[in-house]
Amino acid sequence: MRAALEEADAAALAGDVPVGAVLVSPGGELVRARNLREVEEDPTAHAEVVGLRAAARSTGRWRLDGWTCVVTLEPCAMCAGALVNARVARLVYGCADPKAGAVDSLYQIPTDPRLNHRLEVVSGVLADACAERLKAFFAARRREGKK
Amino acid sequence: MRAALEEADAAALAGDVPVGAVLVSPGGELVRARNLREVEEDPTAHAEVVGLRAAARSTGRWRLDGWTCVVTLEPCAMCAGALVNARVARLVYGCADPKAGAVDSLYQIPTDPRLNHRLEVVSGVLADACAERLKAFFAARRREGKK
Repeated sequence: MRAALEEADAAALAGDVPVGAVLVSPGGELVRARNLREVEEDPTAHAEVVGLRAAARSTGRWRLDGWTCVVTLEPCAMCAGALVNARVARLVYGCADPKAGAVDSLYQIPTDPRLNHRLEVVSGVLADACAERLKAFFAARRREGKK
Repeated sequence: MRAALEEADAAALAGDVPVGAVLVSPGGELVRARNLREVEEDPTAHAEVVGLRAAARSTGRWRLDGWTCVVTLEPCAMCAGALVNARVARLVYGCADPKAGAVDSLYQIPTDPRLNHRLEVVSGVLADACAERLKAFFAARRREGKK
């Protein structure tokens, strides 16, 4: 999660909402990723999706059996669905997202027994540090008069 | 939807589950896309995500205000969430996906009043033609002994 926080800080420096992720292979390989939505003008470039794509490229397979995704913020519906689609084994996230979270808050997509794959979920890891980045980012943006 | 069906057929020819999409800009520009999961070994490369990324590239902006997504199959959670994230205005889909559909079947993500954006949804357009492609694809795959 400390590496994911570094990625979140890098996202903020580039003007993107500070969310970072690390994908961990069954063998312990790390794939780091961060939110690139503004930088790449890509609506799907949340940290988790960027990381899943990079991890799949690194293995040459779309199935990420046995992989773990560590991310600073509770995934949204897109990202939670992507984690299920990629067959990721475990999700570890930092702070909750009461407005859009799709793991515990609004939906429980990674643990939905109706879907064809389920993830083990751990939440609240370094939650305060993860939330602090987001609060500081949005406070600064408000000071600059952006919505 | 006829263009989306052509894309679905192209996906099947390449060995991917036959799902096709067309993104339509407010000015009538068409961006065609198809499921590329197997071809690109990318777990996020469903037709809708491929189309959203291509549409954002074509406009240079991640926000796709006023755009319409036409897709042959009811979007999954990842794709429904991506459509919300991209601020797409309308979703038109063909056949329902009772096992993973996140628009009407399992979830109603594009119309969820708790999220920060909602889409107008039209379903069932050329549904039989859309479903027929999927049935034929999976029947052929079973005959070949693949799961």
